[in-house]
Amino acid sequence: MRVGIIGAGSIGLLFAAYISRAFEVTIYCRSTEQTSEINKNGIVLKKKGEQTKSFVQALPITEWKGVEDLTIITVKQYQLYPIIEKINQLPVIPNNLLFLQNGMGHLKQLETIPFTNIYVGSVEHGALKENSYTVSHNGEGITNVAVFKGDITLLSEFVFSAPIEFPLVLKEDYFQMLQNKLIVNAVINPLTAILQVKNGELINNQYYFQVLKNLYSEISTVLNLKNAEEHLLQIIDICKNTSENRSSMLRDIEANRMTEVDAILGYILEEAQCKKMAAPQLENFYYLIKGKEMIKGANP
Amino acid sequence: MRVGIIGAGSIGLLFAAYISRAFEVTIYCRSTEQTSEINKNGIVLKKKGEQTKSFVQALPITEWKGVEDLTIITVKQYQLYPIIEKINQLPVIPNNLLFLQNGMGHLKQLETIPFTNIYVGSVEHGALKENSYTVSHNGEGITNVAVFKGDITLLSEFVFSAPIEFPLVLKEDYFQMLQNKLIVNAVINPLTAILQVKNGELINNQYYFQVLKNLYSEISTVLNLKNAEEHLLQIIDICKNTSENRSSMLRDIEANRMTEVDAILGYILEEAQCKKMAAPQLENFYYLIKGKEMIKGANP
Repeated sequence: MRVGIIGAGSIGLLFAAYISRAFEVTIYCRSTEQTSEINKNGIVLKKKGEQTKSFVQALPITEWKGVEDLTIITVKQYQLYPIIEKINQLPVIPNNLLFLQNGMGHLKQLETIPFTNIYVGSVEHGALKENSYTVSHNGEGITNVAVFKGDITLLSEFVFSAPIEFPLVLKEDYFQMLQNKLIVNAVINPLTAILQVKNGELINNQYYFQVLKNLYSEISTVLNLKNAEEHLLQIIDICKNTSENRSSMLRDIEANRMTEVDAILGYILEEAQCKKMAAPQLENFYYLIKGKEMIKGANP
Repeated sequence: MRVGIIGAGSIGLLFAAYISRAFEVTIYCRSTEQTSEINKNGIVLKKKGEQTKSFVQALPITEWKGVEDLTIITVKQYQLYPIIEKINQLPVIPNNLLFLQNGMGHLKQLETIPFTNIYVGSVEHGALKENSYTVSHNGEGITNVAVFKGDITLLSEFVFSAPIEFPLVLKEDYFQMLQNKLIVNAVINPLTAILQVKNGELINNQYYFQVLKNLYSEISTVLNLKNAEEHLLQIIDICKNTSENRSSMLRDIEANRMTEVDAILGYILEEAQCKKMAAPQLENFYYLIKGKEMIKGANP
């Protein structure tokens, strides 16, 4: 199976490094500099003090024609729009597309793509891009994937043949899968980014924990969650298990990068607006993050 | 007129320095070290690069018998309880007491003091305690005072005879006077302390300004403000005029001190509870500040 990977950020590089052990991978990069760096050095994967090198073909994104059997789109949600535009302008729409964005705001955009199998995934790995061709695999996890639209055949084959050290798990219900991650992100990311604390602090500090529960309760009401208690326990578990981690949104703010707040809180706020529900907490945390992005002059 | 001042923090020292130009002042301190420092060095007042010295009598708070014609209580609201206990245990309740705390939570406590004239005040000066006997007068303002209970005679005399360079303004309605300041503090203090920004940033950053308006709107609903627009304009004005200032709550958090959040947001939250109103924003900002106090291990 030939696999194309669009986007060479931390997740793109991580996927390329592992997936190339089982499939023929081409990675598509935004800059020509990164393209030639990867072609020259391969992709360096660091994990627990060891490092391995994978040689994959790198091409600039402008060269992408969608000729691979499966294309994995790893860019952030706010970078997705031009890629979907491009997909819809290709002479032949690629057969199988797997989208790995956080949040759920992009699902509407995916519906605009016709005649093809669309898969979505939720990545639970911790990865840090150290330079244009080096990625550090800090947190071992899994990747959940599910059918959003179309036929499951190629996705099953992909999951089945993936390297055992980089597990892919096929889920039945894409909505539940993405919503699960959305809820966790919507609580942990903004709070840690505003307070500038590690994940564990949200449950170890009794007052922060109160805010966590308040915010979760509003999210749960807006999304009309059936199993509200379960989701809360999951959030608490994740804070416990990743207590020393700095969330991606905190790291984005610290590094003057644009955050995924639109994909995460923005999506839930839109839901609240559609349902004509007040969501003052979500709104405040959304604006506090947008304000922090503005101060720092964040770059996508 | 003999004036006693209880508390030798920034406001106590500031008042002692100015008021002693017109009245005979005794300042009562919590520590014997500070007492002897003030008796040895006088109170040094720094203003616009100049410094003046006032010699006033300092005594430890344990020596306070309430014998002066007027006692000005300048401690923070969270330090007030033992002082009111002490007042109520004195053989003779002092005739005239002026309380200068922020917030409004202390009014209930003041009602427990019998047979005396009780005045309240709201200080609009900026002052910084540099050491145990030195205070820097950074922001020139006024002190509003009003009768809370009893007879106005002594307060009028005090206002009339105060030094012209340290203006006191007599207000008719103590409730409006304190509520005015409470509302400003309830919006500016928590937001600047959580975001760690100067006052001006709350109106210059469009997203922070949105949060300011949201929070104000909830406060306005809870307090059932008649002139809601006016208060908001006042808040905006103050952010403009003090744009380079760091709020007292921000400075408290930075210096690991306990904040006045209970006196300010805590009071409005209690109002909401009494009226059985939801106040999710106030609650979250309250807990975020309490959480920050806890992290720092804040000392009163």
